[in-house]
Amino acid sequence: MDIKTFLIEYGSQADRFLDDFFSDKKKEAKKISSIATQMLDLYQEHLRGGKKARGALMVLGYQLAGGKERKKILKASLFLEIMHSFLLIHDDVMDKALLRRGKPTPEIFYQKLSQKKNFSGDQKHFALSMTIDLGDLGVFLAQEALVESGFSKDRLFDCQREANLIYQKVVFGQALDIFGEKQDQFGEDYVLKIHRLKTADYSISGPLRLGAILAGAPKELLSNLTDYGLKLGIAFQIQDDYLGVFGDEKTLGKEVGSDIKEGKATLLILKAKQKADQKQRDFLRQTYGKSHLSQREIDQVRIIFRETKADQFSLEKATKLTKEAKKSINKITRNKQKRVLLEQLADYMIKRNK
Amino acid sequence: MDIKTFLIEYGSQADRFLDDFFSDKKKEAKKISSIATQMLDLYQEHLRGGKKARGALMVLGYQLAGGKERKKILKASLFLEIMHSFLLIHDDVMDKALLRRGKPTPEIFYQKLSQKKNFSGDQKHFALSMTIDLGDLGVFLAQEALVESGFSKDRLFDCQREANLIYQKVVFGQALDIFGEKQDQFGEDYVLKIHRLKTADYSISGPLRLGAILAGAPKELLSNLTDYGLKLGIAFQIQDDYLGVFGDEKTLGKEVGSDIKEGKATLLILKAKQKADQKQRDFLRQTYGKSHLSQREIDQVRIIFRETKADQFSLEKATKLTKEAKKSINKITRNKQKRVLLEQLADYMIKRNK
Repeated sequence: MDIKTFLIEYGSQADRFLDDFFSDKKKEAKKISSIATQMLDLYQEHLRGGKKARGALMVLGYQLAGGKERKKILKASLFLEIMHSFLLIHDDVMDKALLRRGKPTPEIFYQKLSQKKNFSGDQKHFALSMTIDLGDLGVFLAQEALVESGFSKDRLFDCQREANLIYQKVVFGQALDIFGEKQDQFGEDYVLKIHRLKTADYSISGPLRLGAILAGAPKELLSNLTDYGLKLGIAFQIQDDYLGVFGDEKTLGKEVGSDIKEGKATLLILKAKQKADQKQRDFLRQTYGKSHLSQREIDQVRIIFRETKADQFSLEKATKLTKEAKKSINKITRNKQKRVLLEQLADYMIKRNK
Repeated sequence: MDIKTFLIEYGSQADRFLDDFFSDKKKEAKKISSIATQMLDLYQEHLRGGKKARGALMVLGYQLAGGKERKKILKASLFLEIMHSFLLIHDDVMDKALLRRGKPTPEIFYQKLSQKKNFSGDQKHFALSMTIDLGDLGVFLAQEALVESGFSKDRLFDCQREANLIYQKVVFGQALDIFGEKQDQFGEDYVLKIHRLKTADYSISGPLRLGAILAGAPKELLSNLTDYGLKLGIAFQIQDDYLGVFGDEKTLGKEVGSDIKEGKATLLILKAKQKADQKQRDFLRQTYGKSHLSQREIDQVRIIFRETKADQFSLEKATKLTKEAKKSINKITRNKQKRVLLEQLADYMIKRNK
């Protein structure tokens, strides 16, 4: 099996399990209120159509560690996907996003509901409140999916313990990201730390590790998976930031240049500032992180990224890290098929959407 | 020991355990960033000085079920207190609160920080984002406290499973509350449902049950604790809503009348609307839930509550429920001392701050 098939197969199986999970939850919630079932509908809708890479990697980690109980690991992996929606729902508030996966965000949904029902008072605040609450709901749905997955209490305990630490780190990473957009000065260290906390560990090494833990993996395997996942994850984020500036809007499905307006802490802006001449530096200072930039100004920032070779620096760093990640696969498994899968994963993560 | 001493003793012991917990977490967070340690400081500060009734009730539930390992249950009970701060941090955003326990809310803290550091862009949105993120952090700190409490994995599993359901209900209760403020029409059922989900189960029967579960309590005891806790909890909330309108601002430490401005779904407004004549009903419709009311208008709402005997109805209901709660104590324990404690708890919950 190749990695694409692996991801697609997982996605459709996870969707079926999610449908079962939410249909049970909605039966319970009906006894409470239609407000509760509506929240579950909205949450389920939010989960639909996502790439579900984290859940898939949890299954992969489980298999790499010799786990054989597919049904259990599929159920447990819903934990990561439901948690991911919780974080996205809150992130989209923080980013003032209007769309997620091509659909209005929950905040926009509740704004429209509030208008339609002609609610008195601050309608936007109503929507904000419901959105925070909806996100919070997800945490406990996710925990339930994990707890009810059927694994032994020992394994679940170890998984839960590890998950707590991963999510603490994501939350810290998010804070560094929020602060980063407000700061003029940050080093390479700061940017790579956000990449590690918010992307690499959360999206790649964490899921692999959690799956492996549920299969009772020894420490050495966990640390090798972490090594592979962190390198690949950081490479992925650097690449993602590159595409966020230089990518094709249609292929990406998101606005190219929004990172520039948001003032996102990326290797690109960091390196550009380091290598810029006085005029370029002044221009970056005046534009980067300003929400109302013209297309011309965004293009000019892009040109400076090219002139300072910040683009090249980023891509080279991503390529180097991907190579290192691939090298570390040998330590994870001797099984040829599984090695190929991990190599394909590395290529897939880096080449996608280019 | 009387219930007050029980609560006070718990509070100071919990504070010591919290200090240890946060001091360990801050050591880890130092490696990440001062932004992370600042979040932990803020979170710890938020926990300081609260009544910590939920943690205390968890300990009480544990003891009622025969649990003897005080250190473990104290550690585990931090879970409820840290979770409570998570909910309060998010609630205060939803309520646009400025103060919590006499101190500025985290949102205000980050607004001030943002002003002081002269952050570019939308400073209020920065503060909102950090506050949502800070609340999210609490969930995983709380989980860690529970997981590391030293109880067997079996017991922790049962506790976690029950906690997930309690928190799902709180989140649904919060949603009903948010919607309630926007709705003109709701029945007694709706109000009591919010009381049950948001207060009674969350603050009283849930904590008692979680503690009892950690002591391996049989189902019958759990269901008796739930019975007692739900009745007492609903009584408490009805009383709390009464004090929110008729109480003494200084004793309560919060603005009396804010429920009227927020349009909170309470038994008071429900009964008042049912019993009101046309003129009174029109007045309530024009004022209840409007944020800019004069003192005169608030006083007039109060008078209507009295004239329609909504106040009397509420107090009688609270008294009746408290009596029923007390009656159910017999089923919980035959131990005289423990029975007295549960009776005192009922009196304490209802008489406080009057």
